[in-house]
Order: sequence, then C-alpha cells, then structure tokens
Amino acid sequence: MKLLRYGPSGNERPGLLDDEGRIRDLGHIVDDIAGDHLTAAGLEKIRALDTASLPLVDGDVRLGAAVGRIGKFICVGLNYADHAAESGMAVPEQPVLFMKATSAVIGPDDTVVIPRASRKTDWEVELGVVIGDRAHDVPVETALEHVAGYAVINDLSEREFQLEHGGQWVKGKSCDTFGPIGPWLVTRDEVADPQNLAMWLEVNGHRYQDGSTRTMVFGVATLVSYISRYMTLMPGDVISTGTPPGVGLGQKPPVYLKPGDVMELGIEGLGRQRQQVVAYESTR
Amino acid sequence: MKLLRYGPSGNERPGLLDDEGRIRDLGHIVDDIAGDHLTAAGLEKIRALDTASLPLVDGDVRLGAAVGRIGKFICVGLNYADHAAESGMAVPEQPVLFMKATSAVIGPDDTVVIPRASRKTDWEVELGVVIGDRAHDVPVETALEHVAGYAVINDLSEREFQLEHGGQWVKGKSCDTFGPIGPWLVTRDEVADPQNLAMWLEVNGHRYQDGSTRTMVFGVATLVSYISRYMTLMPGDVISTGTPPGVGLGQKPPVYLKPGDVMELGIEGLGRQRQQVVAYESTR
Repeated sequence: MKLLRYGPSGNERPGLLDDEGRIRDLGHIVDDIAGDHLTAAGLEKIRALDTASLPLVDGDVRLGAAVGRIGKFICVGLNYADHAAESGMAVPEQPVLFMKATSAVIGPDDTVVIPRASRKTDWEVELGVVIGDRAHDVPVETALEHVAGYAVINDLSEREFQLEHGGQWVKGKSCDTFGPIGPWLVTRDEVADPQNLAMWLEVNGHRYQDGSTRTMVFGVATLVSYISRYMTLMPGDVISTGTPPGVGLGQKPPVYLKPGDVMELGIEGLGRQRQQVVAYESTR
Repeated sequence: MKLLRYGPSGNERPGLLDDEGRIRDLGHIVDDIAGDHLTAAGLEKIRALDTASLPLVDGDVRLGAAVGRIGKFICVGLNYADHAAESGMAVPEQPVLFMKATSAVIGPDDTVVIPRASRKTDWEVELGVVIGDRAHDVPVETALEHVAGYAVINDLSEREFQLEHGGQWVKGKSCDTFGPIGPWLVTRDEVADPQNLAMWLEVNGHRYQDGSTRTMVFGVATLVSYISRYMTLMPGDVISTGTPPGVGLGQKPPVYLKPGDVMELGIEGLGRQRQQVVAYESTR
C-alpha cells in the first residue's frame, strides 16, 4: 500500500493511493497515518478494506509528510562510504546517530526556507524507514519485521550550523522545513529489497546525487537492530538512513542552495519530491 | 501553579497540587498537561479555576512525567563551567545542543534501568524548562515569555555509549528510563529567578551534586533565544539546561550507578525526585 496524508499543513487527513494513482480518503477508518495504525495489526486492518469503496479525493491537493505525530526523527550520518569521503570524514566503525527536530517535518513538495543568516544550506536524498511495531533490542534477523514501510526523505542540512557552531550536529539539521517526508509511505511488502533502490537528487535540473541504497555502509536491518539497543523504537518513529555522494558540501567548490532553486529527488518505487527554495526574509 | 500528571504509566491524568499539597484532578478541564494547554492562554484558563471545586485525588498515586506529549527533548551540554572541567572538556563558546529521545521520559519516582551491557550509567540533576508559547527566533529580552514553567530533570547518561561508541552523544542519553521529569511543572510566575535556584543530587544518601543555577554558563533566557534560532520551539517542548559538577564521571576514580542504588535529587521550589536503580535483566 501507499499511505499518505493530504490537506492543509497541520490539518492533514489520512489517505491512500489506489492502483490507478488516485487518492482515496481514510478519514473514517483511522485518525491519521501515525502511531498504532502503523503496526502490523494496524496496517492489516487498512489492507483488508475494499479500496474501491473509499471516497475519492477530488482535485489537486497538497500532500503532507507521509507520517504524522512522529515521536523520534533519527538520522544516520556518513552511512555511504563515498559520502564520508566527500565530507572529509572517516567511514564510521559503528553507525553515527543524531536527531532531527520533529518540528522540521514538512510535506514532500512544500517550500524549503533557507534559515536566517544561513550561507550553507545543503540537500541529502535519503531512504526513510518508518517503524511499525515497537522495537527494543531486536536482533538483525528479525529487525525488518518492525518496519512499517519506507519513504523518501530530504535531510536538509546547514553545514555551518552543523559543523562550525560548536558541539553536536543537531543545530544544522533541525531548522524549520528541513525534513520533507513522502510523497507516501510505501509498506514493506511492496519493497522487495531495501538495499537495492536507485536514488537521485537534482537542483535546477542538474543531477547532483545518483546513487543506490546498495552502497550503504550499514543496511536497514542492521540500523534498526543497532538503534533499538540504545532506545526503544516506537510506532511512527522515522529513521533517515544517510545519503549517497553528491551533496553541495562535496562539490569543488561547494555549492549551496539559494532562493529560487528547485530540488527534485526520488527513490525507486517510493515516488518523488519537489521543493522550491525561498529566502527566510520572504516568509516574515 | 504546580501542574502534574498522575496514574499508571501511559495513562496519566492531568492534575494540580493545591495549596495544602493535595492532588486535584484536572481531567474534566484539559486532556493532558501538554501542548496548547501550556500556552499563556491555556495556563490562564487553568489559573482561573476555583481549585477547591476540583475533585480531590485520594491515596498514594504514582506521578508521571510532569509534561505529556513532549515533541522535542533538547539538552544543553557542558553548561556549568565546573562540570565542563570535571568532564575534561572546554567551556563552550556557544551552547552545545543535543537531543534525548522522548521515549526515555519517565515519572520522577519511577525505576531507572541500567541498559544492557552498560558499565557507565551516570546521573545529572538539571533545571528543565518547559516551553509554553511557540518560540521562533525570539530575542533574549522576551525569551522567558515563551516559558510555561520549570521542572526537575535527571539527565541520565551512559558515558561509554555517549563518548566511546562513535559519533554523537544521543546514544548515551536516550536509553529507556533516562529522562525522569517532575514531580511537577511549576509555572513561571512562581519562580522569581531561574538563575538562583539551589540544586542537589544524592546517591544512597551521599551528596554528589550540590550546586546552583547561578553558575550556568548560558542562562535560561539566552538558551531559549539561542535554540529558537535553529528550530522552532513548540508548546510542550522541554529544554534540559545542563548539570553542575559532581557527576559520576567526574569522581576520582569515577563512580557509576549499580543495581540497588537510590538517587534522590531536587531543585529549590521545584520539588524532589527519587529513583531506584535496577539491572536490565530484572526487567526482562
């Protein structure tokens, strides 16, 4: 299934994409694409519905982030060897974890705002993993059973805030609009192999990132197992699994986003995103 | 006011402490001590109630974390100069920020679990700041207007996970039970000066931490303003503002928690916490 959230920001309704690519409303079935509705039992209830009986949604609606009420937005750093190299950092021996503020989450095609005083706002296409059933200290072998599905994420990053303002990376990862998720949550049964998905990102039509989840250092099952040793993963938690080479920081010379730029990105089988970039001042 | 949450874990009800120190139920007024109920307008509604008319809660009830549905649990590192010194780290030029998983939150007197394979579980008494009104890029001068109130926090930390497992600190800060908050949320009007509060922590009756918020490097108003430049602070977000000297890591030789230990901690005017420490294995 492809589950989604549509409507105005902050008032999204749950829906799904039917086989003809039309949005069907789920608002009378679940309150949101979130929390316990994402467990195996919760998804089974939605799967059992007669899709054709669900109300069709007319018109050109905005899509919200594919998951609501995200409890934890966990990111994995330097998880593609080539990206570590372009960042001038070593390939980590263990997964590098950091958090992104949940207040950064937006829809897949929403506007991205360059923060005030930012000079180094950058892009990162990433495979997002949405937790279904609670995971605490789970082995690698069964870790994927705790995954509800996958979604495209753009892990926007302000490199100066991240690397030059002292301390930890969260400062450069958490700005408002820095977390587009979607267009939809594709349930795990529709993704035959999460470690063999093509992924790409373009800015103004120039392809900067052109990779595959095949070259991840730590794969999805390893990450879910590893993270679950440090904290319990809850339904609706999101893990962004790192980015392949081609970020702005890695260009020679570096290239950063500016107002008017348009990012387009996608992952095989998970859909695509498109964000226009605007100046902070234009939003005040 | 002293607002609180009482009842079984995961099913807490909202309440307040009356002038006689008795718990009064707020369940028919607000759904939780959380979110928009913590804005200035939300708190005003609760303040306008006739406390004596609220149902008394009988018996010896468990207290939950003083805030529900926490969106972001933001921590400030090395924010007391003496603590930076005992940790062998420099006093930062800008606030050091990191996140704690919201799944780590527990009640003030709940049991703390030493994680599996942990050898260095440590304590940190901290002044918690609970956000009331949304704060985005706010000046220092008006930053406190965005604070709903204050609470005691024990920012439990696994030093090996934090410092020796590669990457960022979040791994050592986010384990289940690592975030007791409470016993209550004391609204801002009852805290004359958040930069002049005595704070202490004892393990098995030995006083390890005996400090004051007076010696913070960056005060509450500065922190709220600073953080709000990087991410929008939302009602119910929590900032833990750093710990004074006396953590286990700073002892010579270091002292870490072991099963059977009892932590007691408190901050002037904000109440006290008491946690028994148990082994991971005892919880399986």
